[in-house]
Amino acid sequence: MSEVISKLKGTAEAVQKKILSYQKPSLSFPIRALSNVKYSPKVGFLEIGRKRKIRTLTVNTVKSFAQTLRMMVLSKNIIETNDMATKREAYYVSKNWEEARFDDQVESDAVIEDLEAHFGLNREKLGFVPEEKGGEVSGKLIVVDKDRQTGRVQKIDCTKFGSGAYSIPISVEHLKFETNAKFILVIETAGMFQRLVNHGFWKSAGCILVSMGGVPTRACRRFIRILADAKKIPVYVFVDGDPYGISNIYRTLKAGSGNSAHLNEFFCVPQARFLGITPQDIVQYNLPTHPLKDVDVKRAEDALKNDPFFQYHQQWKDAVRQLIRMGVRAEQQALAKHGLNYVIDHYLPEKLRRPHLFLP
Amino acid sequence: MSEVISKLKGTAEAVQKKILSYQKPSLSFPIRALSNVKYSPKVGFLEIGRKRKIRTLTVNTVKSFAQTLRMMVLSKNIIETNDMATKREAYYVSKNWEEARFDDQVESDAVIEDLEAHFGLNREKLGFVPEEKGGEVSGKLIVVDKDRQTGRVQKIDCTKFGSGAYSIPISVEHLKFETNAKFILVIETAGMFQRLVNHGFWKSAGCILVSMGGVPTRACRRFIRILADAKKIPVYVFVDGDPYGISNIYRTLKAGSGNSAHLNEFFCVPQARFLGITPQDIVQYNLPTHPLKDVDVKRAEDALKNDPFFQYHQQWKDAVRQLIRMGVRAEQQALAKHGLNYVIDHYLPEKLRRPHLFLP
Repeated sequence: MSEVISKLKGTAEAVQKKILSYQKPSLSFPIRALSNVKYSPKVGFLEIGRKRKIRTLTVNTVKSFAQTLRMMVLSKNIIETNDMATKREAYYVSKNWEEARFDDQVESDAVIEDLEAHFGLNREKLGFVPEEKGGEVSGKLIVVDKDRQTGRVQKIDCTKFGSGAYSIPISVEHLKFETNAKFILVIETAGMFQRLVNHGFWKSAGCILVSMGGVPTRACRRFIRILADAKKIPVYVFVDGDPYGISNIYRTLKAGSGNSAHLNEFFCVPQARFLGITPQDIVQYNLPTHPLKDVDVKRAEDALKNDPFFQYHQQWKDAVRQLIRMGVRAEQQALAKHGLNYVIDHYLPEKLRRPHLFLP
Repeated sequence: MSEVISKLKGTAEAVQKKILSYQKPSLSFPIRALSNVKYSPKVGFLEIGRKRKIRTLTVNTVKSFAQTLRMMVLSKNIIETNDMATKREAYYVSKNWEEARFDDQVESDAVIEDLEAHFGLNREKLGFVPEEKGGEVSGKLIVVDKDRQTGRVQKIDCTKFGSGAYSIPISVEHLKFETNAKFILVIETAGMFQRLVNHGFWKSAGCILVSMGGVPTRACRRFIRILADAKKIPVYVFVDGDPYGISNIYRTLKAGSGNSAHLNEFFCVPQARFLGITPQDIVQYNLPTHPLKDVDVKRAEDALKNDPFFQYHQQWKDAVRQLIRMGVRAEQQALAKHGLNYVIDHYLPEKLRRPHLFLP
């Protein structure tokens, strides 16, 4: 963490130096907006562009300038005491900053996001963590954590949770891993995850199961990313066969999201591949479907028209077009038509024999 | 589970007997609606009344009658194979029932709910589990589960998960517990839970921490209930000081909800007591607040006017009136105004010295 502290100090000292030489100090931040985003297939995520805004200390900016500096102090204190603060807590801490207090959490959130863009660090590294948790793990993985009070290493064996699971903490930067798993299977719904856990699917498949419970939280995305990077294991994603599963859940996990492009570098999982449910699965496995709603069609057409990720991948363009043409969607539970455990006995093993056919 | 099987058989055999004697078989179900609900302070939850609907086999009811019986068969199969099905999976399984297939999941859900009301069992006991997970645990608790394949007992020690936690499974009926904790502290937000975990609050307080992450899921409520019952330990609830925290989260956890009164018996936690944030805390701890929105005021007034739980408890009536009068609400993170760990060093210890003052 000393690397972060020295970055904080570097910026603070530059401000101080300017002031001591009677000049106006300034801070610069990359512009966080869709207009300043590009998709780099080579790096694999939506990247922030080069446009920056400069905040110079003037009569008009004095309050926000002071707030930014105080937030840097808070960050330094948090890191030095090995603590953390949610964005909401950071807002309330400011209530003791007198004139520099924030009137609304939207303002303090923006300052935190400015700081993470300025330093090129995800805010967890600055000690600011999200409000929400999410993401459960079961299978061939030992998570190496440590007790914050004693500093003693704790090894958490994710094969030993019975029908329960390991719940990913809000911040995962400090975690290490031991595993000999062949892949990570990331699952959209808690119900499907529970089925695979109860039937010990990770034993027969030699894998790690991760439940996202819908759109994955930051901690869940980051966890998958650092685990896959550290252990060089592939990531297969199993979601509903609908525009939401494809474009919101999968695309967000793999390539990040448009309006936080300065973070995608840390939160995307470029090694992710799409196991299913594909539009072709709907045909091949004769799955029960629901008609696409207007909002589904709009989402799919938006992806084709505006989303650089889909525009880059011809296979995805074809798949999304096929889904629109078929006019239907299928949930991962639809496989239950052929029996509750058809997914375990047939679908997943068949798919996993040919990972090279997974959509990119 | 053989008790459930014999209940299923009892109902099925009664139907068969009627048919064999050339009479019209019928099934009866308690009516699940607010008009058939009462609050029993003695039992501590919103109870279903005595009104029942009778479904007799006729030309008009033949499909729903057949669907109900097939769902009973599915339940029996699930229990006998030690499996489970989410409500959504049960819907898709019906796609192979030919004429008795469901056209919409709303219909199959209603049949499952009829069955749980008919048998007076929560549907988890019939093998039908919810779609969503939720609820994390850390602290002085050993969960005793078993491996479904091998039948071997697995003891899960919730003191050993570092910054992570134990994630409650979708169905908890089979769990047993070992603990010497003094109480269970149930927390609304994941951020506050993470703070208490990181600082080992459960060690100093000798307790079990449970994170609800908003309105608690069925599994989370049931987990707290069976744990508190089995080990006879008190349950203290720490939520935001606003009508949502009080009336939606706390009331639902403690007394159940109006539109599933046939289930409250299993899902309520009558031993729960309200630690905070109370309206009086807002004054006493000089907390930063937000103004009550119209929807907050409406929610609070609704509780006073229509909710038998609040009508029964004078202390709650006073507290909710005080909140409306003050016109503000405070989040549990508001304590951070006095320092990030004020909640651990001051607020919780002060509160826990006087549990007899907790709101009922």
